Amino acid sequence: MSNSAPEARRLHLDGATLLRQLKELGEIGADSEVGGRTRIALTDDEKAGRDLVASWMRELELEVVVDRIGNLFGILRSEADDGTEAPLMMGSHIDSVTNAGALDGCYGVLAGLAVARAYREAGIAPSRSIMVGAFTNEEGIRYQPDMMGSLVYAGGLSVDEALNTIGTDGTRLGDELARIGYAGDLEPGAIVPHEYLELHIEQGPILEAEGIQLGVVKNLQGISWQQVTIQGNANHAGTTPTHLRHDAGFVAASIVTFLRELARDSGGTTLATVGCLSVQPNVINVIPRRATLTVDLRDPDEERLTLAEQRFAEFLEKVAQREGVNISTERLARFEPVVFDSCLVDCIEASANGYGFTNRRMTSGAGHDAQMIARIAPSAMIFVPSKGGISHNPREHTDDVQLVMGAEVLLNVVLNRLGQAQA
Amino acid sequence: MSNSAPEARRLHLDGATLLRQLKELGEIGADSEVGGRTRIALTDDEKAGRDLVASWMRELELEVVVDRIGNLFGILRSEADDGTEAPLMMGSHIDSVTNAGALDGCYGVLAGLAVARAYREAGIAPSRSIMVGAFTNEEGIRYQPDMMGSLVYAGGLSVDEALNTIGTDGTRLGDELARIGYAGDLEPGAIVPHEYLELHIEQGPILEAEGIQLGVVKNLQGISWQQVTIQGNANHAGTTPTHLRHDAGFVAASIVTFLRELARDSGGTTLATVGCLSVQPNVINVIPRRATLTVDLRDPDEERLTLAEQRFAEFLEKVAQREGVNISTERLARFEPVVFDSCLVDCIEASANGYGFTNRRMTSGAGHDAQMIARIAPSAMIFVPSKGGISHNPREHTDDVQLVMGAEVLLNVVLNRLGQAQA
Repeated sequence: MSNSAPEARRLHLDGATLLRQLKELGEIGADSEVGGRTRIALTDDEKAGRDLVASWMRELELEVVVDRIGNLFGILRSEADDGTEAPLMMGSHIDSVTNAGALDGCYGVLAGLAVARAYREAGIAPSRSIMVGAFTNEEGIRYQPDMMGSLVYAGGLSVDEALNTIGTDGTRLGDELARIGYAGDLEPGAIVPHEYLELHIEQGPILEAEGIQLGVVKNLQGISWQQVTIQGNANHAGTTPTHLRHDAGFVAASIVTFLRELARDSGGTTLATVGCLSVQPNVINVIPRRATLTVDLRDPDEERLTLAEQRFAEFLEKVAQREGVNISTERLARFEPVVFDSCLVDCIEASANGYGFTNRRMTSGAGHDAQMIARIAPSAMIFVPSKGGISHNPREHTDDVQLVMGAEVLLNVVLNRLGQAQA
Repeated sequence: MSNSAPEARRLHLDGATLLRQLKELGEIGADSEVGGRTRIALTDDEKAGRDLVASWMRELELEVVVDRIGNLFGILRSEADDGTEAPLMMGSHIDSVTNAGALDGCYGVLAGLAVARAYREAGIAPSRSIMVGAFTNEEGIRYQPDMMGSLVYAGGLSVDEALNTIGTDGTRLGDELARIGYAGDLEPGAIVPHEYLELHIEQGPILEAEGIQLGVVKNLQGISWQQVTIQGNANHAGTTPTHLRHDAGFVAASIVTFLRELARDSGGTTLATVGCLSVQPNVINVIPRRATLTVDLRDPDEERLTLAEQRFAEFLEKVAQREGVNISTERLARFEPVVFDSCLVDCIEASANGYGFTNRRMTSGAGHDAQMIARIAPSAMIFVPSKGGISHNPREHTDDVQLVMGAEVLLNVVLNRLGQAQA
């Protein structure tokens, strides 16, 4: 029997404010011509986004703190918190890719604020402190690696190394962070969360394709990124018999078609993508001397991902020998699959069921800050559908009702975790 | 019984001067750092090359004429020529690609001058006028199409259309031609040659690979150039199941591997090359939305070339349907195969045999001015080996002895054609 609060003090998710804030934040860095927005990490536009989110945190009288890598947090303390309590953390990021949608990342941060708002407006303190975070440089457009703020927070990369990162524009991350006024004092990771929840758009087509309202994210794919360089011989297209060719472009194409087979053979668990591909000298009547491509392999199972990498390496060896070319590979990134906390996953599923929202357990195909924070705290994610699976694009879209529904579930999960569930 | 000239008046090929001139011309436009040279048509460097060649024509007291498209000719008249005789023409071009070798084109022009020099130094007039040409813009780097000067000369493109060509740098060809002082008065094609001979490096690996000294070029491949654009859908590499992808990069790769099969199936007569290939947005974790590639198909037989084009078109249709992408093609160039004049080919072969040079009849894989002039006069070509088949590259190389040997054969063929063969 819970000590039921009077009706006036029930926690209520203010969907209208959430939607308004998503729109308002989405206007910062707007690319007027194409309808998207660009808020690359630590640019002036991203600073403006940070300022706006921080102002909303202050409106809610959250304690605003910034750590040394620029992660921005708003804390709503429990009554018992003397500053040492491990908080329930929610969050995501507000930096964007070039010409992005308005939801990726921002939705998770602003939904976290909506949860804090629900407490504030009901005049109820959380039984455990809650903390809403916007992690620095999740997208990794200007500074590599991506998910940097959460990675540093989880201890996977030293603060100094991160601050010394040189961007694609030649700037040093630490300098840009100081320039925009977000080089904070807090040591990243100093506040270890008791648990971490991230609400996010799916950025994939599965929920929409299956007509399901909510994704209960039980795990996150492992990611293997490689750059492959093929060195063949440039020769004249008209004078070099096929059997004497060492065509780097043909080898690149063979790699792309092999990877499709590899993905097909996996029965759908392994994904393989060649996103970047270029040839040199890139002249119509010259056999490519050199080809460069990137390979993105993903699988939710570490053994299968390793097997895919092995099969790929074996293929490279075979094709290099057959075609008389040199192939070198460089590892760009490697993340093991992450299995989210089963209690949190169960709790999210129960909450969705409680509302009567259709849902399915699923794997996150994209990387998220949650995969980093999972290193230091039980974590899980909630997905809402992405129309057409489109993201990183101005056409990124989730219906308002689905956005509010996702935030409702987030609030409900928080209340359940904090033992403050409402009848 | 020929009226044999005294020993002092025998025609002699001055190999040393030919080699010296090749070196000297090769120094114009030299890229000091990488060892090549760049004399793109109608640039200042190419003007300097023209000036040098014209000065050598004048040294030989040739009649120097320039036509409206800038083709540069030196004429050595027969005693009977009243200005109306159809001359025996030799030639090639002196414009180059970027960072080129010293031989492509220049060898044919300077060997023609060496033939004229042999007459001059022996004090003998040719029994038919001989004419050495350097055709404008064979390479087609700055202004399309390539082989432009000879194409215009043969009536395949109007002078005015050619002069109005806009280059990759935005310049108008006619303006640049006037700027460098090579907009001549002669109407292209006004002097129809009696026959045309072009000596050239092979630019392919066949002669070297087979250890043969000389190529008797009996025909020239037909060329079909297309640009292919594939429009798919960009989606997230981590969240889009393989069966829901419309991957323009994968389709491009399938095209490249199909073309290899098509070439293999032809038994070696059809060549297929994808020289240019690019994808968009070219981001590691985004499935390519768009891919663009060029397709270079060649075959010495028109029927087989047409069949290859048909098979390719059928494949495009099939793969577009299977992968759910749109594919469009644009024809960039189409030249039917050229069969060279059998009398000239026989004459070249007989001459090579007369010297005891190992030789083979062969197909030219590359395009040459000879294929254009073949439209208006009996034509044939002579090839010398290219080391490693390399051309359009500073590493382009033919041994001096082979260069001189090729010019010897050219001179001998001219003497035979003109009935001035020496015992």
